[in-house]
Amino acid sequence: MAGIRLYDLAGRDERVRYSPYVWRVKMALAHKGLPFETVPWRMRERDALAFSGQGLVPVMVDGDGTVVADSWRIACHLDDAYPDLPTLMGRVLGRAHAIFVKHWVERVIHPAMSRIIMPELLTVVDEGDLAYFRETRERRFGMSLEAWALPPGEGVAALCAALAPARATVEGQPYLGGGKPSFADHCLFGNFMWMRCVSRIDPLAADDPLHAWRERLLDMHDGMARNAPRALGPG
Amino acid sequence: MAGIRLYDLAGRDERVRYSPYVWRVKMALAHKGLPFETVPWRMRERDALAFSGQGLVPVMVDGDGTVVADSWRIACHLDDAYPDLPTLMGRVLGRAHAIFVKHWVERVIHPAMSRIIMPELLTVVDEGDLAYFRETRERRFGMSLEAWALPPGEGVAALCAALAPARATVEGQPYLGGGKPSFADHCLFGNFMWMRCVSRIDPLAADDPLHAWRERLLDMHDGMARNAPRALGPG
Repeated sequence: MAGIRLYDLAGRDERVRYSPYVWRVKMALAHKGLPFETVPWRMRERDALAFSGQGLVPVMVDGDGTVVADSWRIACHLDDAYPDLPTLMGRVLGRAHAIFVKHWVERVIHPAMSRIIMPELLTVVDEGDLAYFRETRERRFGMSLEAWALPPGEGVAALCAALAPARATVEGQPYLGGGKPSFADHCLFGNFMWMRCVSRIDPLAADDPLHAWRERLLDMHDGMARNAPRALGPG
Repeated sequence: MAGIRLYDLAGRDERVRYSPYVWRVKMALAHKGLPFETVPWRMRERDALAFSGQGLVPVMVDGDGTVVADSWRIACHLDDAYPDLPTLMGRVLGRAHAIFVKHWVERVIHPAMSRIIMPELLTVVDEGDLAYFRETRERRFGMSLEAWALPPGEGVAALCAALAPARATVEGQPYLGGGKPSFADHCLFGNFMWMRCVSRIDPLAADDPLHAWRERLLDMHDGMARNAPRALGPG
């Protein structure tokens, strides 16, 4: 059986892999203890993903040739196909509730982060992808990327306020998943990896309970996330 | 064995029981199929709850005399004490993830709703509780209740935007708990019952997926929630 292949968004520097949605999957694969190799991919290479029936990463090709696109479907596939490995979401209610956290990350946290990192993000996106990136995002936001970006202080304050439910949760338990991380953690952490890969700005104060939560996840799996290449390095 | 007793916040009209936290518990008890009787209580009657070691509702006295305060603790107690009745939160990850939804309701949705219903709420709170209510809430908000209140249109727009993660969830599955309601649903629904008991304003448009979700919960348990007395009646 071949190994697992994961199509991964590459930046201008091919080593910088900054997609928050692929980071979720990388953490999920490490969580299950499944080795994988990544295939660098650019936004304009939609034809290279035609075999998956769509044109966005993450796309995972499992060892038996099963093709799964979309981070949520990949996580469900991993729990269903590998039930004897550590669970990502538990049983029925664990998975049903994790969907809420996923939507919260995508609808609330992702936009809030994007308004902070946009100027730096434009320097990290592969040059050949920039026109596509700008066009799709400006359509989504209904304004120019320059108008979307907030002054860093203002953007960080909005993000930190929006993080309140996650902060309250990790004040009472080590992870969103309780005593151990779950895919809900990987969803939120994926966005922090996006920010870490792209930006010099760290929105979390050292005494924020989410800072300690993030440190724990950065350390996992022999520092897989902590040692990932960053475009700009720490500030 | 005696029946379950639940201390329930009573309004100026004693029949109006508007606490969002007690509503969670009433839905949880009905979900488990456990009969209960309520004991009307006012905010100033802290001595009447001294047996629970604190002074806020909900307080539940189980049939065997076990006393549990706090809606989250009551839900955990019900699943732990009655494991053979329909589960509220499932196993480890279901409960861990439900905590996130609970915090989101309390940190995001509750304040957003309170800014809409505050003028009406002041007419519903028991007259003898009003001074305590004003003092505690103005301290929490850091401003007068009159300054906290938003024009209804502005408040409803903010609430509807904040509801995005729940809306996205019930676009994909009937309840936050998946195919059936869970305590995550009861947490959010409790706040909609608070609003329904107190206010003539309905923030949900008829075509909002959350409107259909709320209708399903209003119909459950022979219309227990739908038939609950409202202070002002529909608009």
